[in-house]
Amino acid sequence: MNGAESLVATLVESGIDTCFSNPGTSEMHFVAATDKIEGMQPILCLFEGVVTGAADGYGRMKGTPAATLLHLGPGLANGLANLHNARRASTPIVNIVGDHATYHGQYDAPLTSDIIGFAKPVSGWIHSSVSAKTVAADGARAVAASMEGQGQIATLILPADTAWNEAQGPARPLPRPVLPAADPRDIDLAAKALKAAENPILYISGDGLYGEGLEHAGRIAEATGARLMCPTSTPRRERGAGRVHVQPLPYFGELIEKKLVGVDTLVVAGAKPPVSFFAYPGKASWLTPEGCEIIYAAHSHDNITASLAALAEAVGAAKSPTRRNEKKTEMPSNADALDQFSVGKAIAHLLPEGAIISDEANTSAAGPHRACSTAAPHDWLSLMGGSIGQGLPLATGAAVACPDRKTICLHGDGGAMYTVQSLWTQAREKLDVTTIIFSNKSYAILNVEFERVGVGAPGERALSQLDLTNPELDWVKISEGMGVPASRAETLKDFKAQFEHSMHNSGPHLIEVVL
Amino acid sequence: MNGAESLVATLVESGIDTCFSNPGTSEMHFVAATDKIEGMQPILCLFEGVVTGAADGYGRMKGTPAATLLHLGPGLANGLANLHNARRASTPIVNIVGDHATYHGQYDAPLTSDIIGFAKPVSGWIHSSVSAKTVAADGARAVAASMEGQGQIATLILPADTAWNEAQGPARPLPRPVLPAADPRDIDLAAKALKAAENPILYISGDGLYGEGLEHAGRIAEATGARLMCPTSTPRRERGAGRVHVQPLPYFGELIEKKLVGVDTLVVAGAKPPVSFFAYPGKASWLTPEGCEIIYAAHSHDNITASLAALAEAVGAAKSPTRRNEKKTEMPSNADALDQFSVGKAIAHLLPEGAIISDEANTSAAGPHRACSTAAPHDWLSLMGGSIGQGLPLATGAAVACPDRKTICLHGDGGAMYTVQSLWTQAREKLDVTTIIFSNKSYAILNVEFERVGVGAPGERALSQLDLTNPELDWVKISEGMGVPASRAETLKDFKAQFEHSMHNSGPHLIEVVL
Repeated sequence: MNGAESLVATLVESGIDTCFSNPGTSEMHFVAATDKIEGMQPILCLFEGVVTGAADGYGRMKGTPAATLLHLGPGLANGLANLHNARRASTPIVNIVGDHATYHGQYDAPLTSDIIGFAKPVSGWIHSSVSAKTVAADGARAVAASMEGQGQIATLILPADTAWNEAQGPARPLPRPVLPAADPRDIDLAAKALKAAENPILYISGDGLYGEGLEHAGRIAEATGARLMCPTSTPRRERGAGRVHVQPLPYFGELIEKKLVGVDTLVVAGAKPPVSFFAYPGKASWLTPEGCEIIYAAHSHDNITASLAALAEAVGAAKSPTRRNEKKTEMPSNADALDQFSVGKAIAHLLPEGAIISDEANTSAAGPHRACSTAAPHDWLSLMGGSIGQGLPLATGAAVACPDRKTICLHGDGGAMYTVQSLWTQAREKLDVTTIIFSNKSYAILNVEFERVGVGAPGERALSQLDLTNPELDWVKISEGMGVPASRAETLKDFKAQFEHSMHNSGPHLIEVVL
Repeated sequence: MNGAESLVATLVESGIDTCFSNPGTSEMHFVAATDKIEGMQPILCLFEGVVTGAADGYGRMKGTPAATLLHLGPGLANGLANLHNARRASTPIVNIVGDHATYHGQYDAPLTSDIIGFAKPVSGWIHSSVSAKTVAADGARAVAASMEGQGQIATLILPADTAWNEAQGPARPLPRPVLPAADPRDIDLAAKALKAAENPILYISGDGLYGEGLEHAGRIAEATGARLMCPTSTPRRERGAGRVHVQPLPYFGELIEKKLVGVDTLVVAGAKPPVSFFAYPGKASWLTPEGCEIIYAAHSHDNITASLAALAEAVGAAKSPTRRNEKKTEMPSNADALDQFSVGKAIAHLLPEGAIISDEANTSAAGPHRACSTAAPHDWLSLMGGSIGQGLPLATGAAVACPDRKTICLHGDGGAMYTVQSLWTQAREKLDVTTIIFSNKSYAILNVEFERVGVGAPGERALSQLDLTNPELDWVKISEGMGVPASRAETLKDFKAQFEHSMHNSGPHLIEVVL
């Protein structure tokens, strides 16, 4: 058994059965090992940003990591932007990067680079294996490291000779790290603050936004009168009919400030107090109102669900929340204009139970987001680190993780270009993903931001940096070129028919919504 | 005048008139400044790997830098792989990365990351501006730094408030760094070694492969009997009729060893002695024959042309080389099979004088490379750092740098997917680029490498990581979807007609060669 086989066997025994990959020569022994060792499914992606974004989507939905397989420093580099997003989502990922053989680095061959340097800004844990004899144990540690806190990126660098030399055998899997339980002093403080407050908010992220955690949040809100809010972007949020309602903050800082006027207590569970996404001349960066007390019931590395449970007990909450979203959707009329609001209503009306929505629609997201709050229950996955090009791969990985659920990807046209290669993997793996491209032919958010940063009206050259006409992207051709059937909706009637067809059939499909 | 305007004015005064860009909110003041300050042309790319690869192609052809404009750490991250390639090419690039305002970093907003950490592995120079008052001077230093040695990547990080605050005005451009002249002791050593050797090679890279440098190399070869050779990959090489012939080393280490059997003296000018691209079990990494003396006539940071001129004098060479490639091409017959060799002959036959060839065809490059050695004079640009996805953006940037020359991009289908967004910029800027996709529907090189690393025959899962069928990419649709007219060649007759049409017309075109 060589090092690569010992590593793959260890990963499989540690519960990793999926590897999103874009390998090269130095990873061929790992690739070969997936044939020799049962239980690891490699999924080829044609660009590394798809690999890492898919691993993010997979990890968010499963709560356990997928592996990646990347080709040396430059392969890792291409995956860094979506690893940045995954880091902000606290997603567990075992990020495997092949390297030259340990003795080859000294020759500075063309692909040689500072892999640890590339990995550092996104990784919670990094190790470069030095021997085939220990690479299995390194793998076991990487898996455990990836599940610390809510999750993090554990980068394991695999020199080619640690893959091809003789190994000792697979390593024993390590136990999953135990998250710190709720701190009774913090819970006590939070409970007292919530009871004493006039206008409190319980501000949640992480696993406080789905499953048990969300139920406890609902209990606390009903017992204390606190409003339930969450950051603008959250890794995974259960929404829709039957679910406890949590209101995300808006995107722009001045709107967040408005929302928080008069709030005297912010009890935080797994989130950070709100700040402006960007700085703007003359606008605030820190958005908690002056004088508002901030209490941490749980930090993001804590067991947020357990903390919310303890807090619910401490405030004397009822066993179960009673206020839940009701189901309420309505199909918009064919006569309505085709825009994000009519499209959103149609999506909400046709949304199957248990759908997963990967949202990178940015300026077109408000319509679907609002309409779906009373649709069938679903999961909503946001762009976490602000690095556009997350949505398509995230949907890809979520669909791999949850093959029995419908995945819907809402995407702006500008952002969708960054990792458009995702479509090929969706076609290859026959993933049940419906992609909706809101084709407004511009970096629409930048047109807004240009105004907001206060540089006056854009001139000709500036405008040329914001618009995506000349030429217009033809999303139907691009999608079909990568093997995903596609259609174009120029009216709401078109969209309704195309989306309904997609909801009643399995497999990938793309709809270009012409705005 | 704000900081961004002072910076753009300084760049323009320093000779930079082109900025490949993919900006976001934090770069809006820079974008606005391109309207207010005359002389800077921003060229929008829809992915950052296109930005950096285009800057590489531009810098290789111009010898002076283009600027980039990237959006914070993740935007830089997406551009790193082609910056790795550009670093290996010693291309001058002024790599501008926007950042949060200096006071905003403390809030750890979603897009905050360790930008310097990301930049370090690829940059020869890094500076993060701290004030609008000094950002212009920082820009002047970045331009000068980018032109040290043969060239390098100078990364200037531009916090948003250094762009929007009031500046002092543009800064005085700095003089271009002077490359160290030839070291007389080294030249003397090299001259004596060449004269004494039985079987010498003059091994060249950098500016020794075009213009005057190449002429001097030819003089030395004729005076000493040394063979002229160069690395497998070189940043820019003048080839074809009328040019001095330089033979690149093959790709595989064992073939390099064969080529170098019996060589007793390797005189190096601007290159590094050959090493294997990858390590392989039981194969050599260091490829210079045992006992062969290595003499450095010039290091890569030296003035290679001046060193070659001095060496030519020292060996008493004639004023001008007499041995030059003759023009010799022949159109292949329509009855020939469609493969890289027949395609290569057709390209060579139809190649216009002064064409630029961006080569990332990998396993399909041998045919065109061989045939073009006696075609009309042209420039050949190789993949330098081994990170695939360089060819399309490199061609894009070269075409921007040299609008009066025809650019031809030879590309494998696998590699072309990484930065496929380049096509859109080619369409938008109406660049005169003909892209030839060798569509063999696999990572063909990996099929070879799988064998070479000695893991036996690939099983089903391994094969699935090497092949690009299921689904097949439709390059005509992908290209048309991004605005570049495209055609498919299924016979050599098709290809000849399509390529000839493209050579006689201007503007971007893509030909999918079905292998």
